[in-house]
Amino acid sequence: MTTSYTVPGFDVAGIAAGIKKSGAPDLTLIASRVPCRAAATFTTNKFPAAPVTYDQQVLSLNPTGIHAVIINSGCANACTGAEGAANAKRTAEAVASALGAHDNSVFVMSTGVIGVQLPMDKLLAGVPRAVDQLRPDGWEEAARAIMTTDTRPKLFTHSATIGGQSVRFTGISKGAGMIHPDMATMLSTVVTDANVAQPLLQQALRTAVGKSFNSISIDGDTSTNDTVILLANGLADNREITRDNSADYAAFVEALTVICVDLAQAVVRDGEGVTKFVTIQVNGAASPAEAHAGANTVATSPLVKTAFFGNDANWGRILAAIGRAGIQVEPDKCSLFVTGGATKGERMPELQLVAAGTPLQYQEADAAARFAQAELDVRVELGLGNGSATVWTCDLSHEYVSINGDYRS
Amino acid sequence: MTTSYTVPGFDVAGIAAGIKKSGAPDLTLIASRVPCRAAATFTTNKFPAAPVTYDQQVLSLNPTGIHAVIINSGCANACTGAEGAANAKRTAEAVASALGAHDNSVFVMSTGVIGVQLPMDKLLAGVPRAVDQLRPDGWEEAARAIMTTDTRPKLFTHSATIGGQSVRFTGISKGAGMIHPDMATMLSTVVTDANVAQPLLQQALRTAVGKSFNSISIDGDTSTNDTVILLANGLADNREITRDNSADYAAFVEALTVICVDLAQAVVRDGEGVTKFVTIQVNGAASPAEAHAGANTVATSPLVKTAFFGNDANWGRILAAIGRAGIQVEPDKCSLFVTGGATKGERMPELQLVAAGTPLQYQEADAAARFAQAELDVRVELGLGNGSATVWTCDLSHEYVSINGDYRS
Repeated sequence: MTTSYTVPGFDVAGIAAGIKKSGAPDLTLIASRVPCRAAATFTTNKFPAAPVTYDQQVLSLNPTGIHAVIINSGCANACTGAEGAANAKRTAEAVASALGAHDNSVFVMSTGVIGVQLPMDKLLAGVPRAVDQLRPDGWEEAARAIMTTDTRPKLFTHSATIGGQSVRFTGISKGAGMIHPDMATMLSTVVTDANVAQPLLQQALRTAVGKSFNSISIDGDTSTNDTVILLANGLADNREITRDNSADYAAFVEALTVICVDLAQAVVRDGEGVTKFVTIQVNGAASPAEAHAGANTVATSPLVKTAFFGNDANWGRILAAIGRAGIQVEPDKCSLFVTGGATKGERMPELQLVAAGTPLQYQEADAAARFAQAELDVRVELGLGNGSATVWTCDLSHEYVSINGDYRS
Repeated sequence: MTTSYTVPGFDVAGIAAGIKKSGAPDLTLIASRVPCRAAATFTTNKFPAAPVTYDQQVLSLNPTGIHAVIINSGCANACTGAEGAANAKRTAEAVASALGAHDNSVFVMSTGVIGVQLPMDKLLAGVPRAVDQLRPDGWEEAARAIMTTDTRPKLFTHSATIGGQSVRFTGISKGAGMIHPDMATMLSTVVTDANVAQPLLQQALRTAVGKSFNSISIDGDTSTNDTVILLANGLADNREITRDNSADYAAFVEALTVICVDLAQAVVRDGEGVTKFVTIQVNGAASPAEAHAGANTVATSPLVKTAFFGNDANWGRILAAIGRAGIQVEPDKCSLFVTGGATKGERMPELQLVAAGTPLQYQEADAAARFAQAELDVRVELGLGNGSATVWTCDLSHEYVSINGDYRS
């Protein structure tokens, strides 16, 4: 039995519009038959791409009347000046017109090379073709047409009972480089038929993004285009969620977080050149923010990431990264544990490598066996406070260098 | 004619003590016949190695009576607890005893794998052998015995006329990974026969280190062992430098900066897996600190560094890095220029790629030609203020991944 990704009221499509030289699919359209309430988080990069700036404006003007998201791969429309801004607007207007929707009801996303203008003739010719292809079960094609260096589409669905009704969530995301979201993320769109007041939608998305997209890193490079959009069309007929202290709101945030974590982890699992999925947990920090900073510094250290690639239990690099993270550390209170296992599989018994900042007398083969697994879990205990954080990352391989030394050719 | 590195009053040696499995040289001794005034800068990593903690104590107890520096490679003596601290002290005391010097007159440095105890039997047996080998022109051996993944020794000498006397400086440094000094640096020792009051020596070293070792990055990883030591024995007989507003002090700082820049650049030029030496200059920032943060973020971006490796003029990654550096940026005031040339050679005409945050109509081949040079110079103009900074870095290659995926085996 194949999974159904259908969400009532949404139609989607993915086509090849000729933006990519390769001829691969490069234009995705997600449309709702009824106006949606929307929420979004955007990159904090000081060179926001044209679609980011455009979408911020649309969200502020029309947060409860969104009809569609149009996404192209093959060109990021970033660092493209006034021409790029005009192109983002023209794209949105062409989609609105083709759907018979109002102005300011369409979001735009772009991903690909920075500093190149969009081929507007190809893109605009693709819009009516994408509209023609819209159907409730077009999600696989939609997920495929936003890929750049991704090796596979990232597509998840999740159901939850909220306010007595079954509510559906379906989302897509893309990686696979320039991934280090900061208060936002790379491209992802999640749609749901839940009935939620718009301000709570934004609050719920921030919470879910903090625990998912903002907790992943592939290479430490925060993109110019990071955007997560959440569209809710309310067709599930659950009683409207209007208070953030309600059980319904809690259930909605929990379900939204589940699909965001699935989408975010899928980005890391398909990171550029990835051979290993690594979970970095830091506990006992002076604050949650310090725990996150510590985990993040480990996750972005080239020396740590190459040791992961080499299956080398060179844990000194992990503590050295913690030591330069700019957080409170007392070496003699610090402990380090590792375990590993198959992808999403059972774990070996946890092995303690360091106690009180000093190496223990473990067997090298026992440590190496854990570092050699497809998934590695690292736990650092700082022994100072109650701050905890988890960050998901991958290793740094030859293939990452090949992909990025040769990206444009 | 071979360069003479001799500095009056200093004798040096480098031997193989058996600390490295390979049998390569691994123990360096730098000794002064007369007591030296000393200055030093140390790592800011919160897991400082045992020798760092020991040297900080020696410097505070005896800043004008230093006789020697002992340096081992092959083991970092970091994250080694009380046993590691005792081993650093025993090493220093063994050297002091062999030289007939007082306690607290010897600095210790270690570099190599973290989390492993020093093989003290081998190290202590090596000390008298190193003392036997001391000679004024042993600098090549001294520079060689501190290497780890370095491919060549880093050794420089420089002369300047200060207070009417010729003053000599000779220094050694080592790379080639975990290089991202933060208010300090990786291992380097500089000796001089200049006559300088000790507090001014520390002030001068801080200034020179800021413009040299603190302006380089190979992989963004700040080591647990970073240390620069400056020994001055005063034998040049220049009138003692006692005021920081004197011409003699200015001349001293200038000469010290010259040799520190030579040593720091040599570390980058021999960075792990390096194929390209890159100078990142950021001008027009709101402050010098913001300029440094911007240049540093470019220099540590894996996407920028892999593009350098691939000779790919993918400049969008440079602006994206500037945009996530946490500094003030106004995209429409930002310009980008590149040039390139042979190692320490003439440069091609500078090429402007971006004006007002928007790509110019340059020829791709012209940009690619500059990115393909052995040395690449990148200049970012932010157009906001007077803050400027220069950072030297290298590319990220397959070889870096190979070296660090396989460091301990």
